[in-house]
Amino acid sequence: MREDDDGRGRDGKRGGVDHTAVRRGNLARVLGEIRSPGTLSRAALATRIGLTKATVSNLVTELLERRLVRETGWRQTGNVGRPGRLLELDGSAAAALGLEVNANYLAVRGVDLAERVLVERRVGFDAVRTEASRAVGELARLAGEAIAELDRARTSLVGIGVAVPGLVDVPSGTVRYAPNLPWQDVPIAEWLRHRLELGEDTRITVDNEANLAALAEFGSVVNTADDLVYLTGELGIGAGVVSGGRLLRGSDGFSGELGHVPVDPRGRRCGCGQHGCLETKIGLAAATRAAAPDLDGAFRDPEEQARVLLQRAEAGDPQALSGLDEVGRWLGVGVSIAVNMLNPGAVVLGGYFAVVSAYVVPAAMRELRSRTIAGETAICPITASFFGFTAAVRGGTSVITEEVFRDPLRAPAGARR
Amino acid sequence: MREDDDGRGRDGKRGGVDHTAVRRGNLARVLGEIRSPGTLSRAALATRIGLTKATVSNLVTELLERRLVRETGWRQTGNVGRPGRLLELDGSAAAALGLEVNANYLAVRGVDLAERVLVERRVGFDAVRTEASRAVGELARLAGEAIAELDRARTSLVGIGVAVPGLVDVPSGTVRYAPNLPWQDVPIAEWLRHRLELGEDTRITVDNEANLAALAEFGSVVNTADDLVYLTGELGIGAGVVSGGRLLRGSDGFSGELGHVPVDPRGRRCGCGQHGCLETKIGLAAATRAAAPDLDGAFRDPEEQARVLLQRAEAGDPQALSGLDEVGRWLGVGVSIAVNMLNPGAVVLGGYFAVVSAYVVPAAMRELRSRTIAGETAICPITASFFGFTAAVRGGTSVITEEVFRDPLRAPAGARR
Repeated sequence: MREDDDGRGRDGKRGGVDHTAVRRGNLARVLGEIRSPGTLSRAALATRIGLTKATVSNLVTELLERRLVRETGWRQTGNVGRPGRLLELDGSAAAALGLEVNANYLAVRGVDLAERVLVERRVGFDAVRTEASRAVGELARLAGEAIAELDRARTSLVGIGVAVPGLVDVPSGTVRYAPNLPWQDVPIAEWLRHRLELGEDTRITVDNEANLAALAEFGSVVNTADDLVYLTGELGIGAGVVSGGRLLRGSDGFSGELGHVPVDPRGRRCGCGQHGCLETKIGLAAATRAAAPDLDGAFRDPEEQARVLLQRAEAGDPQALSGLDEVGRWLGVGVSIAVNMLNPGAVVLGGYFAVVSAYVVPAAMRELRSRTIAGETAICPITASFFGFTAAVRGGTSVITEEVFRDPLRAPAGARR
Repeated sequence: MREDDDGRGRDGKRGGVDHTAVRRGNLARVLGEIRSPGTLSRAALATRIGLTKATVSNLVTELLERRLVRETGWRQTGNVGRPGRLLELDGSAAAALGLEVNANYLAVRGVDLAERVLVERRVGFDAVRTEASRAVGELARLAGEAIAELDRARTSLVGIGVAVPGLVDVPSGTVRYAPNLPWQDVPIAEWLRHRLELGEDTRITVDNEANLAALAEFGSVVNTADDLVYLTGELGIGAGVVSGGRLLRGSDGFSGELGHVPVDPRGRRCGCGQHGCLETKIGLAAATRAAAPDLDGAFRDPEEQARVLLQRAEAGDPQALSGLDEVGRWLGVGVSIAVNMLNPGAVVLGGYFAVVSAYVVPAAMRELRSRTIAGETAICPITASFFGFTAAVRGGTSVITEEVFRDPLRAPAGARR
């Protein structure tokens, strides 16, 4: 059996077919099987995937070299043939960085491909009153420190996923507009690449925070729905929509602006210029006005602020209880619009909603029940995000790691210890 | 070269791989190439698809036998090798039927796989005040007459696609709920199969009218967007959403209920029980109240009714002009919700909207411009459907014909003349 049994020629092509693409696909299939629960031998992999054992051995060698898999123990006896080494996911050579710009904080999270957390930080930051270039500078500083930690952990940075609370032109990594930040046409990917002195081989992917959070929820073990709507609950309200297992991006990547659906034409003026947007009813500022008006206007970390609302509700404070119930009612109005339009299997509440969910979900479910056109079958659970305020930054790392699982050739070569 | 060069064994399987599936996929690829504009020889097909000429010849023979393709002319000289016959789409052996139940009419359309129209009828019918079983009986009568016409045209019925203005459980072909009809849990596929005495090999697919209309628009030559929102404009208002080239169905197939988004909490009571739904502002009844109140309540075919509104607007009738402008404004409110949520590349207006588009689109575009959060880039055109009132029934035939293009083995065997 030849070394290039999978058809890889020296130039990656033979007979007009791109064999590098074939090899890439086969590496991804082998890695995918090894990644799923349970350990496998090369022989078991070959049977499962339908390739020859020699081809699988060759592919596994490449995955071992890139430290994407490692050998562990021996196949149990009782099977026919000589015993084989079992394989499991390694992933310790390659790391992904997630970054998040929020109205009130900056966050960073670094993981290796096996999702081991190597660095995680969140710092309070007033992005609402800070110029974009300064905010990106601060984010780059945090990212630089994190990359130094990844180096110390002997991993190579594969890419960075950046979550921003705004509308993103994904191909160019430019934030077109962020309703709650003084950002307009901010080429954040380019700025980060320049400040961090990263080469073109390090991917920088920028996306809307709600999209990335929805991806993180969709990929989590706790979620089994192929169609879900994730609602951010921060200063602004956005939605990330997963439909049929895919992120719904729309024509230009500008989907999910549920926060600016007009729900009360006679309502308060919104940051976007309209009146009575959903955001003016259920954004964190609105919730604070309704549930804890004495705290209105004070800047603090949104998670801290949510905890104060929760504590007051738990203590039975009437204003907190009635305020959160009112927020829940409007939340239900918004959720029912998403449910009637998109018919998701689950609505996941992120941000501050996740913290105070017990005090907003009952009213939201009542509203949803009365407003779901398709009736009982289409009414889906409204649940708190498992990841809370970390969902977006987790989504940032996962877009990078998933890219490597789709194309293992993106992992650093010759990483074997 | 063996006859079963494409790997088809007698049982369709060899070496654990399903070779019938492989053959099906190859037949679909060959048929797809022949279907696209321009004629091809077997040799050109083989090059384009990357299969051997012998395999392609074998596949073409099967497509010829099923009358899905036919030979036409000879390949032009100037190429190397002996001249080959050119191939083009035939499709005359297999036919698809589209049916539509509308609040005010029943429609039928029969086409062969080359989209030649073999039968097309629409009859006024008051489905709002008719029991479901009687309505389905009448639809079956129309379908039976159409099937007789397909027989006379020497085509075999492959399947029926049924459009209904309600929420459909697609797998069972049951209408769960239709806001404007007295229908609840109507097993329309089963009833039609029984009354038409059709065997299980004739597929009956039931879907929401907006979904089917969206598919028809998406597949049309005039539309190039991969993300579009289709709005029905009849007694009820529904949306069909195509996202990334796929119909967005949601978790249970109940998506697209844009007509019941509450836009005016103090507004009129809707058929669904809520107040101020978009449908109460822009449904055909609302448009008639606003633009031609003297016609309100009179039953007539929605297209006729739309033509009266159009004639009055064209004649400069002030009530018609201001009424349609007001409808356009609310239409813009609804469209902007869809645009902010889904960021489509086009919004297509069906039903009566298509007839009066010149008098509603300007106000709708104004509203959309002022309400699109992502600004200029995300503002998409609002255009009249090319197919108007026939979009849904066209979608009904196309779901059936597309199934055959995906799986040519579904076309009648041994159909060769």
